[in-house]
Amino acid sequence: MIRRRVTVLGSTGSVGASTLDLMAQAEATGTGVFEVEALTGGANIAKLAEQARRWRPKLAVTADPARLDALRDALAGTDIAVAAGDAAIVEAATRPVDWIMAAIVGAAGLKSAWAAAATGATLALANKESLVCCGPALIERVKRAGGRLIPVDSEHSAIFQVFPADAPEQVSRLILTASGGPFRQTPRDQMTGITPEQAVAHPNWSMGAKISVDSATMANKGLEMIEAAYLFDMPQERIDVVVHPESIIHSLVEYVDGSTLAQMGPPDMRTPIACALAWPDRIAWPAPRLDLAALGRLTFEAPDLARFPALDLARQALKAGGATPAVFNAANEVAAFAFLDRKLAFLNIAAVVAETLERATKAGMAFGSGDACGAALSVDAETRRMAETVIAGLANAA
Amino acid sequence: MIRRRVTVLGSTGSVGASTLDLMAQAEATGTGVFEVEALTGGANIAKLAEQARRWRPKLAVTADPARLDALRDALAGTDIAVAAGDAAIVEAATRPVDWIMAAIVGAAGLKSAWAAAATGATLALANKESLVCCGPALIERVKRAGGRLIPVDSEHSAIFQVFPADAPEQVSRLILTASGGPFRQTPRDQMTGITPEQAVAHPNWSMGAKISVDSATMANKGLEMIEAAYLFDMPQERIDVVVHPESIIHSLVEYVDGSTLAQMGPPDMRTPIACALAWPDRIAWPAPRLDLAALGRLTFEAPDLARFPALDLARQALKAGGATPAVFNAANEVAAFAFLDRKLAFLNIAAVVAETLERATKAGMAFGSGDACGAALSVDAETRRMAETVIAGLANAA
Repeated sequence: MIRRRVTVLGSTGSVGASTLDLMAQAEATGTGVFEVEALTGGANIAKLAEQARRWRPKLAVTADPARLDALRDALAGTDIAVAAGDAAIVEAATRPVDWIMAAIVGAAGLKSAWAAAATGATLALANKESLVCCGPALIERVKRAGGRLIPVDSEHSAIFQVFPADAPEQVSRLILTASGGPFRQTPRDQMTGITPEQAVAHPNWSMGAKISVDSATMANKGLEMIEAAYLFDMPQERIDVVVHPESIIHSLVEYVDGSTLAQMGPPDMRTPIACALAWPDRIAWPAPRLDLAALGRLTFEAPDLARFPALDLARQALKAGGATPAVFNAANEVAAFAFLDRKLAFLNIAAVVAETLERATKAGMAFGSGDACGAALSVDAETRRMAETVIAGLANAA
Repeated sequence: MIRRRVTVLGSTGSVGASTLDLMAQAEATGTGVFEVEALTGGANIAKLAEQARRWRPKLAVTADPARLDALRDALAGTDIAVAAGDAAIVEAATRPVDWIMAAIVGAAGLKSAWAAAATGATLALANKESLVCCGPALIERVKRAGGRLIPVDSEHSAIFQVFPADAPEQVSRLILTASGGPFRQTPRDQMTGITPEQAVAHPNWSMGAKISVDSATMANKGLEMIEAAYLFDMPQERIDVVVHPESIIHSLVEYVDGSTLAQMGPPDMRTPIACALAWPDRIAWPAPRLDLAALGRLTFEAPDLARFPALDLARQALKAGGATPAVFNAANEVAAFAFLDRKLAFLNIAAVVAETLERATKAGMAFGSGDACGAALSVDAETRRMAETVIAGLANAA
């Protein structure tokens, strides 16, 4: 029986909504009891209000100040407090609870995850930016507060489940699996004409447009390599990537004695969420089961670094350390959105990232002193301007 | 750094010799220090003596009383005591140590493993008979003595490494992988003429003739299912078998939340031995590493119960419980050796097991009261006579 007082940051998104679904399922089967302190959502007020009426949190927050009245109206007659905007989300994240799901995407997610890290709660982390941009500081912050960080990304959840937290010296290597994305087998000369529509059609996981582009360029695997390095305190040369198009083995941990442990299952985000929700317990839900005989085969290949240079750029960023991974992340985000806006060719996404990394290195871009979250956000902003300049330069040259 | 006072039962066999090799490697790299109490071997006196001169045990035992003088001569000038015969092996097994490898094959292995179980040592168990024939009693005996049982078989080591010993209720299913043996793809009508030479050519593991026959009939997977049921206290309906010809995934544990954890690696017995030797630590050795990209693919299929009925017979034996798994084991051993002696057709191995199981059930064969090891050995002996009668009956009918 799981008992948790929880806050869900980003409850109307796919990860947040799945979290609440799993909580409801656990309550229905008598395996969990949950009290909700706060829910924070985006623009979908109807969904946020429905969740709030079901879970009766003390506080419901919308990210959009323009929708505060709509949220207030939707929750009229309840005793649920309402609020709006980034500062209100950060306030929600600082409230004491047992467990916080940090599932807000992007920079807004960074600030709230950073706030949540100081509460001493178990922090289920789905926001990538907070790890990539200030991972070591975030992890230290969670530790100092007496909390625990549990990754929600399927790859990191896989590693987390088979990693010896008390004896990391037993590990020789982490092996991240990658679907390879929709262009895994596309010859280089056919990659110039890739459209946003082609890039967002991911073979195994349904996800947002930006992360689909990251999957198509394999920048997502680069970001995950950075996250894994921070989460499991592993140097980049001991993190390998193997392409595994079926996405059944979610990642692996190799031990010094030659044993390699892996977490597997049909690709479904609810399994890592359920794992994070119950850890160190496990809760049953009607999960899709692994049927190896029905699958017939699992295939693997080495990633093609020539066609997918983002992977190696991430490795270089990780090697450089400091603010460089944050630069990689911001440059990649700007380039991916420029591609989605048809302002950048697919193959130029990595070129923009490479050029921005080079300029940032030359400019000596580094974290400022003070709060790591603020420092990361200022590197983020500075990088975005730099990347926009690089993109504008490419457009002028064309 | 691993420090162990150890005894190796069956040191001249493949598992025993690998154990000593791994110990030597750990000492050479400064990761282990071992003191050896006793070594027991078979007929290979030269090898046993060489091991004894290297490890300086207090006692060296050969199973063969006729070779005691040869062993004494070979160890002349040392202060190593020598002894011979089954009783001496059992005596060696009762000596107090931290860790015992029980790697003697067959009924002799059962008696010494049973003796070792009462010492409170960590018992690394490679002898299958002791688990199949009196698993629950053996496990209880280890527990009562304050010891720990660590399986050495690759499948059970895999499960052991990803099984939540403190929270078995988190597990929904065990999935044993099977190579499928050399006749995995042989049509039924071509299986009548299978020769012993064909049967002992195992695709992935080098092993003895009898166990190769068990692999070819899949009786080995039936025995492993019984072992898994006892080791992990799991009913047979929650143990599945999947054929995986590459033998890279050594077995899997499915959790209630949909996560499936697996242990993988190139097929090499030294990895599970190293795991048992160091547990809960891990020791480094120059193990072959998993290279999924080089492998390219892993394949899976459901076992064909029509061509490999031994699997289902084992399941029935497990369901019947009591002495029936011991009957399955003994009938299978007699039938496998009759096949190797060209006294029985390949497809009749399972027929003999089925008929013997039926006769034993009709005769009400059960464990007697008293010592579980003695009871198992008497069921074993009785079953062997019964199986010989069944085989003689088949020969007369032909």
